[in-house]
Formats: sequence, C-alpha cells, structure tokens
Amino acid sequence: MSATKILLPDHELPTHWYNVVPDLPSAPAPYLGGDGEPVSAEQMGAIFPPGILEQEMSSERWIAIPEAVREALALWRPTPLYRARRLEERLGTPAQIWFKYEGVSPAGSHKPNSAVPQAWYNHVAGVRRLATETGAGQWGSSLALAGQLFGLDVRVFMVRVSYEQKPFRRSMMELWGSEVIPSPSELTEAGRRALTEDPDNPGSLGLAISEAVEEAAGRSDTNYALGSVLNHVLLHQTVIGQETKRQLALAGVQPDTVFAPCGGGCNVGGMMFPFVADKAAGSRVRLVACEPASCPTLTRGRYTYDWGDSIGLTPMMKMYTLGHDFMPPGIHAGGLRYHGDSPLVSQLVHEGVIEAVALPQLETFRAGQLIAQTTGIIPAPESAHAAAAAVAEAERCREQGTEKTLLFTLSGHGHFDMAAYDRYLAGELEDFEYSQAAVDAALGRLPHADGR
Amino acid sequence: MSATKILLPDHELPTHWYNVVPDLPSAPAPYLGGDGEPVSAEQMGAIFPPGILEQEMSSERWIAIPEAVREALALWRPTPLYRARRLEERLGTPAQIWFKYEGVSPAGSHKPNSAVPQAWYNHVAGVRRLATETGAGQWGSSLALAGQLFGLDVRVFMVRVSYEQKPFRRSMMELWGSEVIPSPSELTEAGRRALTEDPDNPGSLGLAISEAVEEAAGRSDTNYALGSVLNHVLLHQTVIGQETKRQLALAGVQPDTVFAPCGGGCNVGGMMFPFVADKAAGSRVRLVACEPASCPTLTRGRYTYDWGDSIGLTPMMKMYTLGHDFMPPGIHAGGLRYHGDSPLVSQLVHEGVIEAVALPQLETFRAGQLIAQTTGIIPAPESAHAAAAAVAEAERCREQGTEKTLLFTLSGHGHFDMAAYDRYLAGELEDFEYSQAAVDAALGRLPHADGR
Repeated sequence: MSATKILLPDHELPTHWYNVVPDLPSAPAPYLGGDGEPVSAEQMGAIFPPGILEQEMSSERWIAIPEAVREALALWRPTPLYRARRLEERLGTPAQIWFKYEGVSPAGSHKPNSAVPQAWYNHVAGVRRLATETGAGQWGSSLALAGQLFGLDVRVFMVRVSYEQKPFRRSMMELWGSEVIPSPSELTEAGRRALTEDPDNPGSLGLAISEAVEEAAGRSDTNYALGSVLNHVLLHQTVIGQETKRQLALAGVQPDTVFAPCGGGCNVGGMMFPFVADKAAGSRVRLVACEPASCPTLTRGRYTYDWGDSIGLTPMMKMYTLGHDFMPPGIHAGGLRYHGDSPLVSQLVHEGVIEAVALPQLETFRAGQLIAQTTGIIPAPESAHAAAAAVAEAERCREQGTEKTLLFTLSGHGHFDMAAYDRYLAGELEDFEYSQAAVDAALGRLPHADGR
Repeated sequence: MSATKILLPDHELPTHWYNVVPDLPSAPAPYLGGDGEPVSAEQMGAIFPPGILEQEMSSERWIAIPEAVREALALWRPTPLYRARRLEERLGTPAQIWFKYEGVSPAGSHKPNSAVPQAWYNHVAGVRRLATETGAGQWGSSLALAGQLFGLDVRVFMVRVSYEQKPFRRSMMELWGSEVIPSPSELTEAGRRALTEDPDNPGSLGLAISEAVEEAAGRSDTNYALGSVLNHVLLHQTVIGQETKRQLALAGVQPDTVFAPCGGGCNVGGMMFPFVADKAAGSRVRLVACEPASCPTLTRGRYTYDWGDSIGLTPMMKMYTLGHDFMPPGIHAGGLRYHGDSPLVSQLVHEGVIEAVALPQLETFRAGQLIAQTTGIIPAPESAHAAAAAVAEAERCREQGTEKTLLFTLSGHGHFDMAAYDRYLAGELEDFEYSQAAVDAALGRLPHADGR
C-alpha cells in the first residue's frame, strides 16, 4: 500500500520557532505610533507580556519553544501531511498534490499554534486574564482552549451578528470555560458609543478589536491577544512549515510550488517562512499566497503605512492595504476579510520572494467540494482558497504535461461552515464585484498615502 | 517530552478483520425468519452482496481486508491512541487513562470503518446504488462518503425531525454526493402509509429503516446497508481494537479495564472483540459496555429473540432487548437510543465475558466537558458514555489508591452536537426516569417471550 499520509511522532514536534527577520532581504520597517515615531516596547507592554514582546521585536533566527508549550501543542501536533492521490486521479494530472492538514487541532484550525504560546507567556508573566475579539470564532475558540490549558480567564468579544447566527463556536468557547460577549457591548466605551449611535449595531471585527484592546489597556489584570498579522503570531505558526519540510523529506520529494490561504498572513508565514531561507540559498520553490478576489490586499492594494484596525487604535504598520476603512463584501471565508496584511508577508511580496493570487468565491467552493469528495476532508472556506489555487495549477500541469510537486496548507475543517456549503449546493452563492474605485477612495483617506 | 499520543504509520493498518465467532464460548444462535426457521443466505441476498453475506455467516477467525478497502481506510486510519495526562492530573488519580480517538475520520466517528467495506463489497458485486437510513446523520454521512469513494449512488432516508432540526449532517451528505430524503417520504409504501395516518409525522429510526429496506428489496439495482448490530459490521470495526493493542504494546502498557459506548454494539465489538481471545487465554482484563440509563438494554433488558427494527420487518435475533416497540426517551446520545443490541455482544454479556454499566445523561455531559477541557477534544454525547465510566473508575482508583490502566473509546467528536452542550451549559438538560413497567409491557408483547 503506497502511503496516503506522513505522520511524525510527538518527539519530532519542532523544538524552535523560525524567525524570518534575519533572512529578509532588508530590515523590516518599524511600527509607528500616533506621533509618527517608532512604537517602543514599553508602549506595547501595556497589553502584551514580556515574552511575546521580545519575540515581536526579535532578530534571532531560532527561538526555543518552552517545554510546557510543546507538551500542549502535542495534544494534536505534529499534524499529518497527506498525498491527495484520489484528487490527482480525479483531475487526471501528472502533478503530485500534497497538503498539510491543520484541522486536527481541537479548535479545528491552525490558530491554536499561536494561542497556546500566547496564553503560556501571559501565564508565566503572572497575567490571569486575557481579552480578545473574534469574528466567526476561529481565533476566539483557540484562545479559549489555550486559556483553559494554562488556567487563564478569557473574555472574547464576538461580533454580534456571528454571536447570533453562528452559535456553535460560541458554545465551544463556553464549553472550554471562556466568557463570550456579543460586540458591541455595554462593557466598554467603544461599545457603548456604538450602541448609542445604533442600538441594533450588528458589530464588526474592527469594533470588537477596539473593545478588547480598550479592556486590556484599562485593566491591570488583563492582557490582549491577537490571532494574526503581528510578527510573533507568524513566528508561532512556523511549526507548520518546519514539520512539512521534514515530512516531505521522509517522502523523498521537494515541492515546486507552495500555496497557503492569506487573510492576516499567519498561514502564509507559518508554511512559507521556513522555505524563504531555502530560496535565499538558491531553491527555486515558488511561494504563492492565496487571497479572495473580493478582498485582494496583496494583488490590488498599496504597499504603505496604515492602521491594523478599522478605527485607528493600533500603531501604523507598513503593509499592503486596501485602506483601513475599506469594508470587504460578506464572503464566507470570514477569516480572509481583512483590509491589510502581515508586515513581514507584505515585505516579502513587495520584494518578490512570495507571489500572490486572488480567487473568486465560487471557484474556492468548487475546490472545497472536490477536496471533500476525494479526501473526505471538508475544508473551511478560507482553506479552500489554497486548495483552489493548487487545483488550478494541477490542471495547468495536465495541459502542459508537467510533473510538478504541489503543496498546500489545508488550514482548517469546515464543520462549522456547513451553512455556507449549503448555499453553494443550492446555487445561492455569488462572486462579488471588486471595485478599485472604492479601494482608491479608502487609500486616499490615509494620512501617509505617499507610500512611506 | 513524554508521549501524549501513539501514532502508527499507514502500513500498520491491520491487514485482517478479527472474527470473534470461533472464540465464543458457545455457537451463536441463528437469525430466525417469520416462519421461526433460520434465515438463509439466499433470503438475505436480496439486500446484501455476497462478500458481506459471507462475512455475516463466517466462522473464520481472520478475514483479509481487501487492499482497496485498506487504501480508503488510510485516508484517516490508523487513528491515534492518546494518554489523557491532563485529565489524570485534574482528577488527581493514580490511574493511567488512555483513549482511542475515532473522531479523526472524515465523518467524525468510527462509522466509516464499516461504511467503506460495505460500499466496496457492493461495488465489486456490480451494485450501483445503496439505500440506508440515518437518525442524526452519523451513519448516513459515513455511507455517503464511502459511496463517493467507490462511485455508488446513495439514498439516505433521514428521520424528518433531524432533517429539519440538524441540517448540517444533511449538508455533509449532499456535499459528498448523496441524496437525502426526509422520512417518512412519499417514495415508499411504508412512508406513504405513515403520512396518510399523520401528514406531520416527525419520523423515527424504525420507520426510516422500513423505507430503506423496502426500497432495497424492491429495486434490483439497489442494496441496503446497516451501520451496527449485525456481525459483519462489528467485524469491520475490529480494526479499532487491533490498532489499540499494537499502540498499547508500543507504550509498554496493558489495560486493566476497557470501556466503550454501547448502542447497537459496534463500538463494543470493534474495541473489545480483539481482547476476548486474550481473556480466553487467561487475561484478566475487564471489558465494560457503557449504555444510557434511560435505554438500559444490557443492564435491564431480557436476553431473548426480538426483531431488529420497531415494526418487525427484519429477522428475529437473540439479543438483549427492551422490546422492539419500546420508545427510548429523547436523550442527546441519539446513536445509543436502540431497543436491542448486537447478538454477538449480547451473547458475550450473557456469558459473563463482557460487563455492562448504565450512565445517566447528566453524568455523561459532565464527563464530556471534562474531556473537552483537558484534552481539547469535544466528545460526541455517545462517546461521553465511555468517558464517564472511565472517569468514575479513575475516581475509584483515587479513593482506593490503585494504579490501574484504563482505556476507553472516544468514538467521535461533538462538532455537530454543540446544541446539546449548549443546553447542558444552560442547565436545561435532565436525567430521564427509567420505567421497568414500560419495558416489561413491551417485552410482554413479544411472541417468543419464553426466553428462547
């Protein structure tokens, strides 16, 4: 029987995180405060613990993973690497298609890879309580789990429309012991202001971030945790790419092209950063970030300074952006509806190390069903973006008769996204028109629209 | 780092199924037809393919697993064996607690272990179409997946109340390419009769079985597939126990007590049959079937001949039963709401090889939350029965200071059962009163209530 999947034993879980900063072609641009000056560690220390801050600013290539974090990650890691043989047969392609499956984590995605160390570094800093935000619940459920593992109380501000329409990730967070608050709430100034303006405010991720940050900044017992974008989050995710490289070596193959879904960038960083050093050393592997055509930050946005949230509470970061007040359409891949992108990923795209491609919604659901029918695994709509790009490349290989080895990250399962698949099967899903004019307008409202 | 889980590579997937029949203390009682005579293979051949019939009747100890079946099972098997260290710590018990996790299958439970070979044996017999029934959807989704893998059309009669209230397993079946029909339907005589009597009939598993069997019996292109109870289903599930024994050997431990949830008996057979031969050879391992206190077939039922379905369409089988028209209360562990039990499991309980214990609903949900908080994995309510029995035993070990090794089957995840956990967290769940009088009445309606 030829191998369908490559597993690694617990002790092969990586011992270090890989920091891409020393392997970047040029130094990263600093985060800027409201005064236009680089943000200090002290300023960020109001909401982050020392261990996390150190990683955010580090230029060390390898950072040791604490044993307690490795033991918690071993609840589900190392994750399996699959060869999608039935998909190859269905497509009639000479390409090999491999995927790394992160949906085996308890929360069903790659997000706990960073939630666990973030909870642990807060725990060792004596912090007893975390505040965070969540949209549909992927990140919130991951932090709820991590908080439970290290005895921290977690309050999750969940976008109200998701809180009401998608109750099951809320149940998951509560089962793991967290408190879930629909946002906007009466608990914060930002929430109260929003409710005063509109008592039926359905909430937004930007507003939920504002509530969580306000609470963390205002309470000495509470810190904040973010699920993507920042350097330390991408650092934590590099266990994905490291394991994958080891598994591919065991299978005796090298990838020609690597695909990962891209919203805030933590999947791209997690899978691709460990390949960046190889490229610097001469490897010709192609690294392709896969984003939604309706929120095409990397392919249609501008590389400039912008805020990380929608109302300007965070520092400004140099990144690809569609403008912080650009409102992406309501695609089902909620985790990819972000106006900006990780500064590290943005820099690597800008410097030509990582490519980007944008995929329309219907194509991603078609690929999702194809994956479900050939591997059994139902991908989350976010993950289906990378699958769709890999399928398209495998079809090009068929047309051209080339035997490439393709690799993608299947970052999570779609067990809590079945309503979206229902709509797809019923023919009710649509592709969204993208408006460059709307993006240009949003970018025109930036204070530093000079490309600085 | 001490191991949290024991994995096996693809090639260690068992090569044979283990048939417990030759290791039974006495020969199994035959299935009986309406005439009181043993049912022939020819009669069963109207709805089952030859490969399955042969296994149903076999007294060979080892039956080879076809390579195509092993390759399909390798999409998720071998499954992991976990040591629940955080649970041990939380309970403060000197016991070791291990569990075999079957929730990694695409359908989220152990059910595909039999759906895959059933689809394959039908495929090689030239059958193009299968009919089956499903309650909440665990078995229907497993057969939908298996049908997709081998190119069979699958029609699933889904109990109407589940079809309407639990749409996401229906979506799963449709995504995998199956047709899902709410039962009762206008497509069968049984369905039309039920709808004539009550146009708002919410359906029942017994009625859905009748519809699926009627369709398979009446169409030459269509066979029937059952997800539990019968010998061949339990045979297919023995990959669970075989893998577990290999994994425990790698960990260097022997179990003292083994727990599995029990509805139709396929989890019990799957995990425990491979230990039955050991017991015959002198092993003192205890094997404990875990059933709901509100549907206590093994602990309070009678060992006698009864029908497998609720309206008497199937052959009669000698088994523990609460009476085929006993209606169990609406507990959330829908997979355990069955009036009877596998004849093989029943015989082993009757002969004292397997023990049985009954657990109240609230205790199982408490155990489910404990498992979720310490391992991350949210158990299906069915699986939580075995977990609850293991937790109770671990607590006895703490009180008595005994260092036992406990093992249970975590047969599936609860991602599609979050509404039940919601009700548990809101304090809305209840234990159900069990009425021996109702069972005695149901048993009194049996034609062979003489214990034959």
